[in-house]
Amino acid sequence: MSTAESCFHQNLCIILVRTRNPLNIGAVARAMANFGGSQLRLVAPYDPAFREARSAVGASELLANAEVCQSVAEAVADCTLVVGTTAATNRSASLPLITLPNAAPRIADAAHTGKVALLFGSEKRGLANQDMSYCHWLMRIPTTLQSSSMNLAQSVVVVLYELARTWNEFAETAKPEDLAGGNPSAKMQSLLRLTEVMHETLEYSGYYSEAAAATAEEQLRQLLLRMKPTEADTEIILGMFRQILWKLRAKSSP
Amino acid sequence: MSTAESCFHQNLCIILVRTRNPLNIGAVARAMANFGGSQLRLVAPYDPAFREARSAVGASELLANAEVCQSVAEAVADCTLVVGTTAATNRSASLPLITLPNAAPRIADAAHTGKVALLFGSEKRGLANQDMSYCHWLMRIPTTLQSSSMNLAQSVVVVLYELARTWNEFAETAKPEDLAGGNPSAKMQSLLRLTEVMHETLEYSGYYSEAAAATAEEQLRQLLLRMKPTEADTEIILGMFRQILWKLRAKSSP
Repeated sequence: MSTAESCFHQNLCIILVRTRNPLNIGAVARAMANFGGSQLRLVAPYDPAFREARSAVGASELLANAEVCQSVAEAVADCTLVVGTTAATNRSASLPLITLPNAAPRIADAAHTGKVALLFGSEKRGLANQDMSYCHWLMRIPTTLQSSSMNLAQSVVVVLYELARTWNEFAETAKPEDLAGGNPSAKMQSLLRLTEVMHETLEYSGYYSEAAAATAEEQLRQLLLRMKPTEADTEIILGMFRQILWKLRAKSSP
Repeated sequence: MSTAESCFHQNLCIILVRTRNPLNIGAVARAMANFGGSQLRLVAPYDPAFREARSAVGASELLANAEVCQSVAEAVADCTLVVGTTAATNRSASLPLITLPNAAPRIADAAHTGKVALLFGSEKRGLANQDMSYCHWLMRIPTTLQSSSMNLAQSVVVVLYELARTWNEFAETAKPEDLAGGNPSAKMQSLLRLTEVMHETLEYSGYYSEAAAATAEEQLRQLLLRMKPTEADTEIILGMFRQILWKLRAKSSP
């Protein structure tokens, strides 16, 4: 592998959400060793499964170094692009759904300038809508119509293969500087902090109806993800809302 | 899937040689259901493994119809092209070794006119030289140098994905609308109206220092232009700031 390729893969985070089968966790780690992807994170894994996978004969360094996170928010905090995977063609219609061959060049682009998170849901249910609300967009592996539900570890290996293939094509033809898109996108933790402060400000100002309040924060998060602010702009907007919130609070107290 | 594609896949035989793990046999059948490949043949499988895989809950029709053969010769008898898979880069130097992305179009071509056999060896040892002697050429999945040995079922799914991808490229040109971001950017007049309302809100909240006030509105406009919100999102944000401004004003008046 070239240095450039390793560098690309160092920005690739595989995030498994609520995985239950230890064999799947082990198989994902092996797929990452085969095709690249340096960081494995597990959100709320079924505990015995993770312990069993980690203690398996031949368990990799990658598995030993896997991070366990309590929430999707925590797992994606340092990433600048978050992509969810789904088998369904008609789910979460509000998010763009891109097939893997078209998604791979975008992921490769983004991994030049920041960390990219690829989210994979649980074996039975995939990603929940709540998980997807942290995603910039969704990705689907094109399968036969008759059988679109893939084994978890197999979907990971196909995605990593496609990324490695795409990257190799890039390495031969395109110059990296052609791909870097100017200023880097904001890290997720900055966007999520901004979401919180905006949400509180809007609550204070009476923006939400009771009916809307339940999904309000998810929608706000999606709004910010769509606009892809840079890290610097995210800081500026955060400053604005902190000031507004301070003013609203100051006026509330008698 | 198009008729042409189904036709192509009907000529694709996956042949597993001396497979020992029932989970691998089941996973291969699932991968074939996901990506196509209508015939599964097993050469001298470890008998209990095959029985277990076949009787597993949810075992597919594909597995029920799998043929068991005594020898590689028997398994490839009706095929016009036989391709062996190998992880090693320097094995059986007498046979051509082609990486998967380059091999896929050749396999797709050949499957138009006759049956193609793809041979996968046992979990531990891969294909023996004797098995390879039935192959026209060998195929290798490009992996990292550090870890070139793949799980059997994972290597099958990657090969089938690459073939389906190649075939789809043959059958249809990429649709640009998959890549287009969907919603159009906001009209300037919407952005400018938003700038005004945001500016007034920030003034009300005491965000600007006196020094900054002069260029504040320009900077705000630039900030919004950088984020390229859609028309719909611009309306949403405008609604937010109108509400916040209303609240700030309401609190100011005694």
